[in-house]
Amino acid sequence: MSPAELKALIRTVPDFPKPGIQFRDITTLISHGAGLAASIEHLADHARAKGAQAIAGMEARGFIFGTAVAVRLGLPFIPIRKPGKLPIPTIGVEYALEYGTDRLEMDPEAVSQGQRVVIVDDLIATGGTAEAAVKLLRQAGAHVSDALFVIDLPDLGGAELLGKADVNVTKLIDFEGD
Amino acid sequence: MSPAELKALIRTVPDFPKPGIQFRDITTLISHGAGLAASIEHLADHARAKGAQAIAGMEARGFIFGTAVAVRLGLPFIPIRKPGKLPIPTIGVEYALEYGTDRLEMDPEAVSQGQRVVIVDDLIATGGTAEAAVKLLRQAGAHVSDALFVIDLPDLGGAELLGKADVNVTKLIDFEGD
Repeated sequence: MSPAELKALIRTVPDFPKPGIQFRDITTLISHGAGLAASIEHLADHARAKGAQAIAGMEARGFIFGTAVAVRLGLPFIPIRKPGKLPIPTIGVEYALEYGTDRLEMDPEAVSQGQRVVIVDDLIATGGTAEAAVKLLRQAGAHVSDALFVIDLPDLGGAELLGKADVNVTKLIDFEGD
Repeated sequence: MSPAELKALIRTVPDFPKPGIQFRDITTLISHGAGLAASIEHLADHARAKGAQAIAGMEARGFIFGTAVAVRLGLPFIPIRKPGKLPIPTIGVEYALEYGTDRLEMDPEAVSQGQRVVIVDDLIATGGTAEAAVKLLRQAGAHVSDALFVIDLPDLGGAELLGKADVNVTKLIDFEGD
């Protein structure tokens, strides 16, 4: 299935989580067997082309696509988690939300020095979470130059934000001005 | 890699999340590329043998193994989520925790009537979360007779609890009395 066909499987929910927001829902894509498999195949092709040695994904939706890409390529998967979930000493990074802050944590021993880690997530909006993940992975010693997304909302500037951190964004689908 | 070799990749963290609990940590398994791929291959073999038409997984760690198994078999993945995460009208089920209750939600249209859905998760302990997921999937019309886990802690009785709900438990690894 082509990216345009995959786009047709994304459900748009108006006014969620608040009025004026068009929520792009991947539930309908992942509950389509062929659509899910094709998404992973496209993402895995990109990750391979970027020289990925490991895949990282952020809790919770990033686990959906990230692990499957890692398995497809026989690579490690590095889970980046919400606070307090990992049972071992972690490293963490705080990042700003629209209201307040949030925190991501990971096992500092999950990556080796200079390992090429590619981030995979379902969607990039402002890019704040992905930027925090980049900082965290670099703090652990990873080389991070690429992040892959199923969906980009380019109006929200996420690719520009990651670009300033020397991370190149690749997406399968975008929803621009619509 | 055999299940015994996979077991050697699980990290045991003593006294997490509280004194006396031996936490079985899959982080070290999934950050081993060959171990992760072999885990998925074993789970996918079981899911195929059980006649799975879709795979369901519970947020968040269930997303790690569940999606990859679905992709391996070209099947839909049905995410079972924590409250308030899905942007559409959901069905939900409450279940008891050691202290208090929690809730799982799903899109009632994610499964078709009589569809054979196999649950995949990293670990079964008391089985309370998996039992709730079974109820929820059946409420949506799914046929659920099997649940697959990477790790079983048989001392905690999860397989018996699911057995009472006519769900058969298959695990790759167990940690019994140790």
